[in-house]
Amino acid sequence: MYLIGIDVGGMSIKGGLVDSESGKILYQTAITTAEKYDTSNSFSEDIAKVVALVIEGSKVSFDNVVGIGIGQPGTIDSERGVVRYSNNIAIENVPVVDDLHKKGYNCPIYINNDANCAALGEYIFGAGRGYKDICFVTLGTGVGSGIIINGKLFEGRSSAGAEAGHMVIVANGERCTCGRKGCWEAYASATALIRQTKAVMEKAPDSMMHEIAKEEGKVSGKTAFVAAKRGDRAGQDVVDAYINYIGEGLVNLANIFRPDAILIGGGISRERDYLTIPLQKKMDAEAYGGEHNPRVIVKAASLQNDAGILGAAALVINKE
Amino acid sequence: MYLIGIDVGGMSIKGGLVDSESGKILYQTAITTAEKYDTSNSFSEDIAKVVALVIEGSKVSFDNVVGIGIGQPGTIDSERGVVRYSNNIAIENVPVVDDLHKKGYNCPIYINNDANCAALGEYIFGAGRGYKDICFVTLGTGVGSGIIINGKLFEGRSSAGAEAGHMVIVANGERCTCGRKGCWEAYASATALIRQTKAVMEKAPDSMMHEIAKEEGKVSGKTAFVAAKRGDRAGQDVVDAYINYIGEGLVNLANIFRPDAILIGGGISRERDYLTIPLQKKMDAEAYGGEHNPRVIVKAASLQNDAGILGAAALVINKE
Repeated sequence: MYLIGIDVGGMSIKGGLVDSESGKILYQTAITTAEKYDTSNSFSEDIAKVVALVIEGSKVSFDNVVGIGIGQPGTIDSERGVVRYSNNIAIENVPVVDDLHKKGYNCPIYINNDANCAALGEYIFGAGRGYKDICFVTLGTGVGSGIIINGKLFEGRSSAGAEAGHMVIVANGERCTCGRKGCWEAYASATALIRQTKAVMEKAPDSMMHEIAKEEGKVSGKTAFVAAKRGDRAGQDVVDAYINYIGEGLVNLANIFRPDAILIGGGISRERDYLTIPLQKKMDAEAYGGEHNPRVIVKAASLQNDAGILGAAALVINKE
Repeated sequence: MYLIGIDVGGMSIKGGLVDSESGKILYQTAITTAEKYDTSNSFSEDIAKVVALVIEGSKVSFDNVVGIGIGQPGTIDSERGVVRYSNNIAIENVPVVDDLHKKGYNCPIYINNDANCAALGEYIFGAGRGYKDICFVTLGTGVGSGIIINGKLFEGRSSAGAEAGHMVIVANGERCTCGRKGCWEAYASATALIRQTKAVMEKAPDSMMHEIAKEEGKVSGKTAFVAAKRGDRAGQDVVDAYINYIGEGLVNLANIFRPDAILIGGGISRERDYLTIPLQKKMDAEAYGGEHNPRVIVKAASLQNDAGILGAAALVINKE
């Protein structure tokens, strides 16, 4: 049987047909996200358009589609199937699931926050397979998180929980986009890494990071990692401090949820072992109760570019 | 029907007979905790002794006892009914539940961490009644926490989660008893408050806190609160900073769990409104998503001195 996964982003709305057993994407397509959605319905129409394109392009019968999942940044009321608020697409209170049902898609349809979808995708199709309890963290522009408890997505009341990126790890620290000071996101996101890299570069005019940034055309999330790998002391300092900030949040999650594993996704996770080995070391050294408590594994997420579509499709399996 | 609740502490082991409907303690008694338990069995014998004293003293038939719950500080394997490790009673790997069954107590018997019990107690018999999801936090020598999700205790894998006191809120901050630096416990416990009070007193020789501490015979968790209420500026500064640290952790819990309410217990919670009003204000201002997300209520726990016995007894109801 098949699942349809829709991955909504600020640039494009991707859709894919997924084999529910193998987790393979059999067909995929995309349209450009509109710069502005005038009426709430025009957004749902774009979603419906992608669903239609997937069915048309993949040539499967809609009768064989078990369900549709939609992953979307923002604040989602997953119970009622409503996008409450989405910052980067500028829509509010759109009843996407109802709209799609009205357009004749009479299968189960679910919508959820993109980080929750990514967690589910890894749990069902990726690096989280075989575990019962995982935390998933995505290190990108922000820090997103998704929590799986006993095989099911944990969302908090009205799906307003699982926002671990907005857990303060430095009281009175850097201002976060959410308004608080010192959130994990303000220290462990790629955005934060770039800020930290620039700050150290200013004080270290001889660091290789200057040259690397020039080659790349800008300071990026890679600059300090590349420099550190070439033996640059200042670059290594940036990386060490940054990894330590990531680790503070990971150990916090371990102490709160004590999952089997914590998976790391997002752009920064491409550093793989360079990131996960020191993080595992910190986890083993600092997680509460030491050897009296079961170990929490730290590993990189595995779905990469397919994460969006597979995560959205996984919503259907989560609800079955 | 009746429940038996056993509250194990470093000084005494209390036992009570609880009416399962009203949550009233109908009879209670206690014995002194031994300074040292030579064999693991001698600890279970003391627990059995308290159970026997409760049955004898209350004159109920054991047939009317639905179950026995035991609350205990330390690392507990609640699934297997084993005290894995308890710091202040110095016991390790004691299979308390099996031991009691062997002594002929053939009813359901549960053991859990004292903070988890307190959370359950408040949820079933106290300030948490009527909610579905609560976080409970106890501010005492340390910071303990218990989490109720959808009406059930959430413990993490092998009951090793729900240790929110060991969530870092000040990266590279004060050393915590757990070995990490900057845990919430190292900033929001009564112990931390005393340290913070002493530090400000040193710099403020004219503060009323000196006089108040002299009256009380020592610097305590009350010193700064009393001074602040009398209009002392330095005392108010201590209280403001301390409440802010408590608040950082509470908002973190709100963002992670988005419960209906967070309840505060432990000695410090006797400050009631003086504590909960500014904490509610911080919660409303800082919890993620603002008005787009449902409000999280902050309130004081209500069971006070009965919390230990009622919390332990509530374990039986949690499992039913």
